[in-house]
Amino acid sequence: MVLGKRTDYGDAKYAGVQVPFTLDAPATVEAYGLCGFDFIVAPLVRDSWRPPAPTVPENGSLPSPFNRDDCLYINSSQWANQVVGLISDWIQTDSPDPGVRQQSVAALRHQLGWAAHLGLQAVVLPAPHRPGQCPNYAQVLNQTLQSLTHMAFWLTVPLVLPGTQPRVLHEPQQPQQAPEAEAVSQTIHGKQNGAAAGGAPSGPVMPGAMDGWEAWHQVRAQCDYHNLLGAALLVGPTLPSPASLDRWRGEPVKAILLPTSVFTTNKRGYPVLPKGHQDLLAASFNLGVQVVVTGEACHSVSSTANVIAVTAGGTAVAVGPDGEPLGFSITNPGESHPLRPYWEYLCFLFRRLEAVGEQERQETSYRDYLQVPLQPLQDNLESQTYETFEKDLRKYKLYEEAVYKALKDRHAAAAAMSPYDLPIASTSCSDGPSNHVVLMVVGAGRGPLVRASMRAAARAGARLRVYAVEKNPNAIVHIQQMLRSEGWEKDVIIVSADMRHWQAPEPADILVSELLGSFGDNELSPECLDGAQRFLAPGGISIPQSYTSFLAPATSHKLHHDVKSYKDLEHFETPYVVRLHRHHLLSPTKPLFTFSHPNNDAPIDNSRYGTVTFPRDPAVGAAVLHGFAGYFECTLYGDVLLSIHPPSHSENMFSWFPIFFPLREPVYVPAGAPVEVQMWRCCSPHKVWYEWAVTAPVAGPIHNVGGRSYWVGL
Amino acid sequence: MVLGKRTDYGDAKYAGVQVPFTLDAPATVEAYGLCGFDFIVAPLVRDSWRPPAPTVPENGSLPSPFNRDDCLYINSSQWANQVVGLISDWIQTDSPDPGVRQQSVAALRHQLGWAAHLGLQAVVLPAPHRPGQCPNYAQVLNQTLQSLTHMAFWLTVPLVLPGTQPRVLHEPQQPQQAPEAEAVSQTIHGKQNGAAAGGAPSGPVMPGAMDGWEAWHQVRAQCDYHNLLGAALLVGPTLPSPASLDRWRGEPVKAILLPTSVFTTNKRGYPVLPKGHQDLLAASFNLGVQVVVTGEACHSVSSTANVIAVTAGGTAVAVGPDGEPLGFSITNPGESHPLRPYWEYLCFLFRRLEAVGEQERQETSYRDYLQVPLQPLQDNLESQTYETFEKDLRKYKLYEEAVYKALKDRHAAAAAMSPYDLPIASTSCSDGPSNHVVLMVVGAGRGPLVRASMRAAARAGARLRVYAVEKNPNAIVHIQQMLRSEGWEKDVIIVSADMRHWQAPEPADILVSELLGSFGDNELSPECLDGAQRFLAPGGISIPQSYTSFLAPATSHKLHHDVKSYKDLEHFETPYVVRLHRHHLLSPTKPLFTFSHPNNDAPIDNSRYGTVTFPRDPAVGAAVLHGFAGYFECTLYGDVLLSIHPPSHSENMFSWFPIFFPLREPVYVPAGAPVEVQMWRCCSPHKVWYEWAVTAPVAGPIHNVGGRSYWVGL
Repeated sequence: MVLGKRTDYGDAKYAGVQVPFTLDAPATVEAYGLCGFDFIVAPLVRDSWRPPAPTVPENGSLPSPFNRDDCLYINSSQWANQVVGLISDWIQTDSPDPGVRQQSVAALRHQLGWAAHLGLQAVVLPAPHRPGQCPNYAQVLNQTLQSLTHMAFWLTVPLVLPGTQPRVLHEPQQPQQAPEAEAVSQTIHGKQNGAAAGGAPSGPVMPGAMDGWEAWHQVRAQCDYHNLLGAALLVGPTLPSPASLDRWRGEPVKAILLPTSVFTTNKRGYPVLPKGHQDLLAASFNLGVQVVVTGEACHSVSSTANVIAVTAGGTAVAVGPDGEPLGFSITNPGESHPLRPYWEYLCFLFRRLEAVGEQERQETSYRDYLQVPLQPLQDNLESQTYETFEKDLRKYKLYEEAVYKALKDRHAAAAAMSPYDLPIASTSCSDGPSNHVVLMVVGAGRGPLVRASMRAAARAGARLRVYAVEKNPNAIVHIQQMLRSEGWEKDVIIVSADMRHWQAPEPADILVSELLGSFGDNELSPECLDGAQRFLAPGGISIPQSYTSFLAPATSHKLHHDVKSYKDLEHFETPYVVRLHRHHLLSPTKPLFTFSHPNNDAPIDNSRYGTVTFPRDPAVGAAVLHGFAGYFECTLYGDVLLSIHPPSHSENMFSWFPIFFPLREPVYVPAGAPVEVQMWRCCSPHKVWYEWAVTAPVAGPIHNVGGRSYWVGL
Repeated sequence: MVLGKRTDYGDAKYAGVQVPFTLDAPATVEAYGLCGFDFIVAPLVRDSWRPPAPTVPENGSLPSPFNRDDCLYINSSQWANQVVGLISDWIQTDSPDPGVRQQSVAALRHQLGWAAHLGLQAVVLPAPHRPGQCPNYAQVLNQTLQSLTHMAFWLTVPLVLPGTQPRVLHEPQQPQQAPEAEAVSQTIHGKQNGAAAGGAPSGPVMPGAMDGWEAWHQVRAQCDYHNLLGAALLVGPTLPSPASLDRWRGEPVKAILLPTSVFTTNKRGYPVLPKGHQDLLAASFNLGVQVVVTGEACHSVSSTANVIAVTAGGTAVAVGPDGEPLGFSITNPGESHPLRPYWEYLCFLFRRLEAVGEQERQETSYRDYLQVPLQPLQDNLESQTYETFEKDLRKYKLYEEAVYKALKDRHAAAAAMSPYDLPIASTSCSDGPSNHVVLMVVGAGRGPLVRASMRAAARAGARLRVYAVEKNPNAIVHIQQMLRSEGWEKDVIIVSADMRHWQAPEPADILVSELLGSFGDNELSPECLDGAQRFLAPGGISIPQSYTSFLAPATSHKLHHDVKSYKDLEHFETPYVVRLHRHHLLSPTKPLFTFSHPNNDAPIDNSRYGTVTFPRDPAVGAAVLHGFAGYFECTLYGDVLLSIHPPSHSENMFSWFPIFFPLREPVYVPAGAPVEVQMWRCCSPHKVWYEWAVTAPVAGPIHNVGGRSYWVGL
């Protein structure tokens, strides 16, 4: 039974439960299904099972590794997707004892082979016995991964590891801060209620303990970031800081392993989670991560519910007077299961999450999906593409506001001036009244900026003469249609031409364009507007007036994997437009390049070079760098800001997703080590391109040399 | 409104109608929608529209090619998938007059550009004005295709072209036979009812007429078999022979253009189609091809229905006493539309088609889908794969029958023999009664052949000692489970070993295996059974006893395109397992290689070389060769045949789809020209592979030299 009906959290609505060894998987699935859980995590073999000793083959016949009574048996594939296998915890592939090592490797291979044979979707792998020192474990996993097509590995990763001196690949540049000591083992069954109410520690780990991320990173780096290898985060009673936890947003976390022992008890004896754990689960649900409850029930709950509340999902849940869930009234046998209150609490957390807005729901399918940026200068857009962008009401409202303010300012300035100072454009019209304002829309498309400008003029009480300049002859037909239906045929002149070659019959007072890309200048707005500013009267206004790009270093396993799937250099040297979702920014954004219009430089040089250094809080811990996220902020006019830069993002505007510059190889960034990136905007007569390179924590190759892989055509 | 609810015919349930020029696409779609049609084929511009003359740009501004009142205007993308564009018929890109040619090319480019801008799913292109002599037409189409991502071209192809001397790429080797003369032009509007009741002509075309396929082939060959280029077959009153029509099964036919003029009139005045046309439509529906009705209504139908019959789909249709549909009683305005009776007749034809069986429905998603053959010798199969194959009840029934007959024959032979002649196997068992028959299953998997053999023994009243030899240790667990639940633990000995290395403790009377691939020997059954026959007692029986592969030359645009999409040589040199659907066999199958077991040759040589010549009926016309379809027939024992060879295919058996050997370049095969292929089965110590080459009608390259692209590992 799903935790809730919402679909925007992907598989997070399915919760699992770890169960003891079972010979009868279907019956176990059904029993826990009544209790609420959608899948079980079950040991693949009895705990006492050991692999057959290697022997000399007798008559060519080898002993079979399993007997029917030793292993999880699934007769039909229909059960396979409700069972996740659990690999034996005694396996020590990196034991110093060669005998133990050999037996462990054989056992691991046998169990993985059995799980693959059964067609399971995933297996949970035990945490490395010697975290950070398990090269042999990674070797066996990596070799097995090569022969798999769909079964995923969920490596157990305790968020915080007990003990021993951590072995990190690079020494952190500043000492780690870690005020609280707390170790978590994977097999806690004791009751530890109410232990973790304190504030979050400021470091990822406690003194003497090791950051679980380091253990994870060693294994997955050895496995070359294989996409079937994910992490199952084992949560202890004390959590690392939110900043430290945020690193996992960019990692392939597949499950949260939630021991019953981390639950506290409310006044009525029901299991509940501390606030930090609640936040962790909410963030996990949001990323589509599934929760698996582990351990035995350690809360005994009376079965009498006092109050029945109906949740947002419409399901009746028994709650106490404080609004916390108590448990369903008993109507089926599963509801009396001792683990039922834990499942109900997960339901409660899942269902109380904020409903997402319509726009975010529409964007769900674009999350972390790579798109190559448009080249509107080279290619003509389809009608449907225009139509999609025209639906961004917020954007055109901002343009309308910018034109409105520009018209108002012009009017105020004109009123303050002596007649001798009147701008040329207002007086030079031979074919109309001199109070016309000449506004040119360059790149008019199907006409949305014409519409926004006409609306602004109506509000400002100004009369416009609009030139709608558009190079796509097909889009022109739509403008014709708009002029007719709005009665604007006398106010708007359609110019079917490329703005770079057109000769304007009169100078413009205001030049309006929407040529910005996700990184501001990446769709060649600077080059286009430099060409078009010859239309502008002295003192004329360009809308937009200026724009600035922003960068931040990012972790995104998903994007790295998707780029890598192309198996060529070209795709690693291409920036992508992406609705970033499962990602972590290693440091806040910083500004990069700014362009202003009109540009009075002589000569104009639109090439740029920038170095950006991103400091990092050592308390967050180490992280991996897969590339850089890019955004822009744009001043349309005066105080009218149009932005996709997270701190200032224009509300409900959806025309632009961020840009992502990938790196050929992921870079390990030690705790506290700053990231430094070099970025070039290069220009030649026929194309513009970016080159980029990481120079700290270690220097890497310059990407896209000479625009060999990606460029925007002029 | 769909023609019927069945989904197994893909898009064929949507019928279209060609309409006159319209300014208001949504209103037109709605009007014809009421009449029943799901999409319209509408001219993109007025017939009087001509492209603007090329002029010197004035101020850099060029005239827009369209005005709002000249062209099909669609304001929103929601209508785009209900409108197919129609390119002007006056366009003559290959006119000898340079002015006409230039204007035609400009007009074609403008209209294609407009259609792409509107985001239409397809445009219908006029038939070439000079069929077989339209290189310039193909050049413009091919250039435009390079910039398209989803809009399809439906090239109008009259099945039979009027007139002039055909220009074919190769002269046919035998004269074409064509008894009836009949020319069809694209714009017939006259009434020609009842004209086409005669027998099918024996040639694809009439004397002096040209085979429409040749005109199609010239254009698509120039366009390098581009996947967005398809054919819209224009049907005339007289059809080519069924054999000639069958060629189109392998071509990318997207639509049938059905002029109202080809309908005849039944006694009550309703439009109906002659038998041949009914068969053509049934075949088209089956391939998922859509029908478009063209021309004006030329049957006036009284609106009074006599009898209401309920069709299989559950919809009430007005029918006459003879069961033919008359038209709905008028309940909405669309139902009085003059084209309504044509749409109703299409419904009638669509709904009366045979319901497909459960098995064929399950196979729908595999149609024309390339799969690389399994390598069960190298790789261990997953449980789910075994499970799927075990569901093939027919196959195991045939095995049971073969074992049963072998046991019966053995019994009869033993009874007829003197005690001194008793086979060794029956007397050499030291650990059991001498009337045991020793049966070895080599490659037992999860045990289905053990089960079939035990059932056969029970029927034959024989006692078996079964050795189940299986190299996949995971599959063994399932056999253990079966033995326990069936109580066969004493009768069956499980051997976890590779049959090539195992030493059997006693000789076998019967050796049972299922190691066959889609091409018989391609999963190395010969090599495995040669290795296993050392287990067999003298005079022992191998089930299967022998198998033979069969080949036929095939047209399949879909498979050629899918292989080509990989953009490498390797995939063109790999045979695929495919549920062939949209394909045409240029000639009946012929046998290729045969293997028999046990094999008493010394030494055994499993390499093979064969030449096969496929004669072709010149009356069928020319065709294109994309590769070879392969099948096998297997004698399990005596008269028990297991076959996927179409003439003898075992009913309801689904374990094997055919195999397909692709060719790097499609080969044009002139009418009547035979096809000759060379095929080698090559063996080395560690692998087996095929090489193949076409040697007629023209010699082509040998594929997969030395097994460089594809091989099966030993």
